[in-house]
Amino acid sequence: MAIRLTILGCHSATPRVDSHTTSQFLEINKQHFLIDCGEGTQVQLRKYKVKFSKISRIFISHLHGDHFFGLIGLISTFGLIGREKDLHIYGPKGIKEIIVLQLKLSKSWTNYNLIFHELESKKSELIFEDDNVEVYTIPLTHRVYTNGYLFKEKIGERKLNIKEVSKHSEIEICDYQNLKNGRDFTKENGEIIANVDLTTDPTPVVSYAFCSDTVYKPDIVNIIKNVDLLYHEATFLEDKEFLCEKTKHSTAKHAAKIALKANVKKLLLGHYSSRYGNLELFKQEAQTVFENVELSEAGKVFEVNNATNHCV
Amino acid sequence: MAIRLTILGCHSATPRVDSHTTSQFLEINKQHFLIDCGEGTQVQLRKYKVKFSKISRIFISHLHGDHFFGLIGLISTFGLIGREKDLHIYGPKGIKEIIVLQLKLSKSWTNYNLIFHELESKKSELIFEDDNVEVYTIPLTHRVYTNGYLFKEKIGERKLNIKEVSKHSEIEICDYQNLKNGRDFTKENGEIIANVDLTTDPTPVVSYAFCSDTVYKPDIVNIIKNVDLLYHEATFLEDKEFLCEKTKHSTAKHAAKIALKANVKKLLLGHYSSRYGNLELFKQEAQTVFENVELSEAGKVFEVNNATNHCV
Repeated sequence: MAIRLTILGCHSATPRVDSHTTSQFLEINKQHFLIDCGEGTQVQLRKYKVKFSKISRIFISHLHGDHFFGLIGLISTFGLIGREKDLHIYGPKGIKEIIVLQLKLSKSWTNYNLIFHELESKKSELIFEDDNVEVYTIPLTHRVYTNGYLFKEKIGERKLNIKEVSKHSEIEICDYQNLKNGRDFTKENGEIIANVDLTTDPTPVVSYAFCSDTVYKPDIVNIIKNVDLLYHEATFLEDKEFLCEKTKHSTAKHAAKIALKANVKKLLLGHYSSRYGNLELFKQEAQTVFENVELSEAGKVFEVNNATNHCV
Repeated sequence: MAIRLTILGCHSATPRVDSHTTSQFLEINKQHFLIDCGEGTQVQLRKYKVKFSKISRIFISHLHGDHFFGLIGLISTFGLIGREKDLHIYGPKGIKEIIVLQLKLSKSWTNYNLIFHELESKKSELIFEDDNVEVYTIPLTHRVYTNGYLFKEKIGERKLNIKEVSKHSEIEICDYQNLKNGRDFTKENGEIIANVDLTTDPTPVVSYAFCSDTVYKPDIVNIIKNVDLLYHEATFLEDKEFLCEKTKHSTAKHAAKIALKANVKKLLLGHYSSRYGNLELFKQEAQTVFENVELSEAGKVFEVNNATNHCV
């Protein structure tokens, strides 16, 4: 299956003409999610021609402006363009009060349902699941209550090997679901055909972990172990590591250490401080620790596709 | 004296890649004001190289998002760039609660003083004055409580006619202020020299009226009479006039009628609905009623300068 991640903004602190604050659009297994929503996100969604009416759930990491000041604008715009379907918002406690107060004072209630899921726990928890996807929080350590998010596809059904199945006339269509569920087939004469002889493994699932903002925090490794794609903030280079403890941010090398420990497939950096003009330096620093590193840039799309075959 | 008005955004409803919502930067007689602050205003300020740290007072017309969703971001950015001087915010009751709640939940209190002036009156009132400038509210009629703002220079001192003054050896430097204040000069022999023979008129003052959003409201004419520059919203053309009463907006022709009745020097249109691609149509419609019409466009600067001479 596949993940498609569109970077809408990846800079820290304040939006500028050519540097937008954090927001990402994530397509994963039929779901369309928005992660963080800095000021101007709705314009970035339009700029990169993202079909943003499809967004069903918005995940806000924390209540610093560069991660959520665009949320009220997007909610309002959804109202103006006639959205009807529910919109779920996940974020720290207080996010509902901020949004509802503004809707109330502007007398601009939405015509669609706005459903808030306020988070308070300091432990990782499952906050959403359907038949295809699970989303867990990744508790981070920042100056305010902050969560990253882990998006995981669910392992699907086994795939029928039609060529093998068709060799057995006793297997009927009504048996297929049992085979997909992993059961062996028992013939009338009592003979058992092993499931592995009739099916192939499910398409491998993919996973994405979003970790921003946080000080270097190795205890998240257990939560994000083996993910296909890890976004980890890298506000500073090592030259400013002394600022990390006070500001509760990470360096590019910190991000790479987390990627290495967690054995992720690819590391994506972002949340760059505006003091750095050359973003390649972030990549170079991280690659001294972990090789497969990419830089977030607005408009860039990252795809993870683990599909191995096209059996039914 | 002079007014310099920089348009930062002039479209209604929602920001898009090439159309920004309402905000204007006004320089008037040593003061630097911001009028309305739609989402993305801080980026527009940077884009047009406005020295926005100079902004001392922000005037918000009403609490619809396209007029104030950029305010919290600008306030935060002022904090991040180390602002120290006071910032005054004028706007409808409730604006303080919105801003303070967000600062509280993000634990991002400003290091500078943030002073709110919440407005509730439905009558025009003087809300700011110093030695050079006065600002009055212009009560408008919209779907929520809304004020336009009238910015007026104060009439300055009379100007010394140095050539005439120097003909009279009895007039000393210590007499100059009395002359500037309009007093006649009495010589030792009792002879009176009329002030008008020693001074010239003060530089004519200029005035700017900002009127957005509102339904056609002729009773504002008395407040904005004879202003040099009138910005009046024109959300619709006449073809959609039937929407005005429900949405409480105006057409270009409505704006022109107000300009004509108020005998303003120049009319500036804005707050265009996104349904119109060709903005020239707004100008053409308005000019059927009032000739001196300009269109707001982001980045455009409008100057009003009534200076007639350069005497001391």
